[in-house]
Amino acid sequence: MNTPVLFYGVPQGCSFGSIVALEWLGEPYQLCRIEMLEHPWPALYAKVNPRNLTPGYLDAANQPLSESAAILSHIAARAPERGLGFAPGTRGNDQLAQMLSFLTTDFFAAFAPLWAAYEMQDADDATRTVLTRLGSADVAQNFATLDALLATRDWLVGGQRTVADAYLPGIARWAAYHRLFDAARDYPNVARYLARIQQDPAWQFATAIERKAVASSSGGFAGHVTLEELRPRLAAIVAD
Amino acid sequence: MNTPVLFYGVPQGCSFGSIVALEWLGEPYQLCRIEMLEHPWPALYAKVNPRNLTPGYLDAANQPLSESAAILSHIAARAPERGLGFAPGTRGNDQLAQMLSFLTTDFFAAFAPLWAAYEMQDADDATRTVLTRLGSADVAQNFATLDALLATRDWLVGGQRTVADAYLPGIARWAAYHRLFDAARDYPNVARYLARIQQDPAWQFATAIERKAVASSSGGFAGHVTLEELRPRLAAIVAD
Repeated sequence: MNTPVLFYGVPQGCSFGSIVALEWLGEPYQLCRIEMLEHPWPALYAKVNPRNLTPGYLDAANQPLSESAAILSHIAARAPERGLGFAPGTRGNDQLAQMLSFLTTDFFAAFAPLWAAYEMQDADDATRTVLTRLGSADVAQNFATLDALLATRDWLVGGQRTVADAYLPGIARWAAYHRLFDAARDYPNVARYLARIQQDPAWQFATAIERKAVASSSGGFAGHVTLEELRPRLAAIVAD
Repeated sequence: MNTPVLFYGVPQGCSFGSIVALEWLGEPYQLCRIEMLEHPWPALYAKVNPRNLTPGYLDAANQPLSESAAILSHIAARAPERGLGFAPGTRGNDQLAQMLSFLTTDFFAAFAPLWAAYEMQDADDATRTVLTRLGSADVAQNFATLDALLATRDWLVGGQRTVADAYLPGIARWAAYHRLFDAARDYPNVARYLARIQQDPAWQFATAIERKAVASSSGGFAGHVTLEELRPRLAAIVAD
């Protein structure tokens, strides 16, 4: 068996949540850094995900996985005793699937017009205004949904910290990046929840990793590995 | 125990896939129709999903569920012997989660700018052009991804028909609605796959249901029920 590898994208990647989840899992893993803005992406990465998106994951049996919801569910299922997910067939399992879907669909997608505007630096003002207005309204609506939910609970699903809580902060930070609103004033429950998670060693580790700062793992981080170093493992992947 | 109910939205709802999946499951279920364009939505529906989105689902234990990926995974898990999903902890299960996530995130979201333009009937031409161009490019890219995948396989995941195959056609039809391209010419593998599924009794049933035509169930369809008729069940929902 091999050490599982998470391929995370920078800057500001949604992979952030998978790093946090792996720290919480506490089992050995390696990280492989993908500079998302450097085009073209290394051809080798297509073995992990031909769509060239992060996060990507290579499990101990050398099988690639993509899509945050699938990777996070896989991580939670690796060690049921850690309580990052729920047993198959339970109500908690259904609710976690629902929450991960909400976060990776509507919540994530609400920012898409803002990123599109950001990438169209040479577009006319009218175009960027249309996209910015559309994205801002959607993000605000989704923050309101989360604020109502977090008014009565400490964690997103059930009474425990799950992989959904690992994922949310990596997306929610985009609202600050785009300077959409004052979260502490407009969405106090979300702001309080995020402030609490930002004290978590796993959050601090993932933040340091992204910034190439000194990062102290409270989980099983076994160092970085490059795509080149992974070439033999990537070459051995059998398409299924 | 109660009969499970699927709340499906018309017109052109992504709930279509959950109807197909329930037909394939073969267990008793009822349908509750939501006219998505009639605002405001009935207040009762908030008990199913306060975000007012379809599909919604009420299981036999009277617990509500939302998000297509969560509902479809739940349906597949109800009867493992039907083979609409895979056992927990297997590679197939990971791959199905990955495919459902791709379909409900990037594939679904690619159409969002097109629907936004559609709903802005009174917006200026420039605004609608921006949105239409953005959506058309994204949809084309996602059809290309699926076309490459379906060049070498009959079903989206593994060698069997899964809930992912129930979901795809209900989204893919939006490309024809927006007249984006000639699928048979540009994405022949997707076109062939869709033509095959359109012969399926479950596809024909779901299409007839949406159109209020005579619908012949090859599964466990136990009739329509209204939100009013469901009032006692909805009132009995305990928030968790």
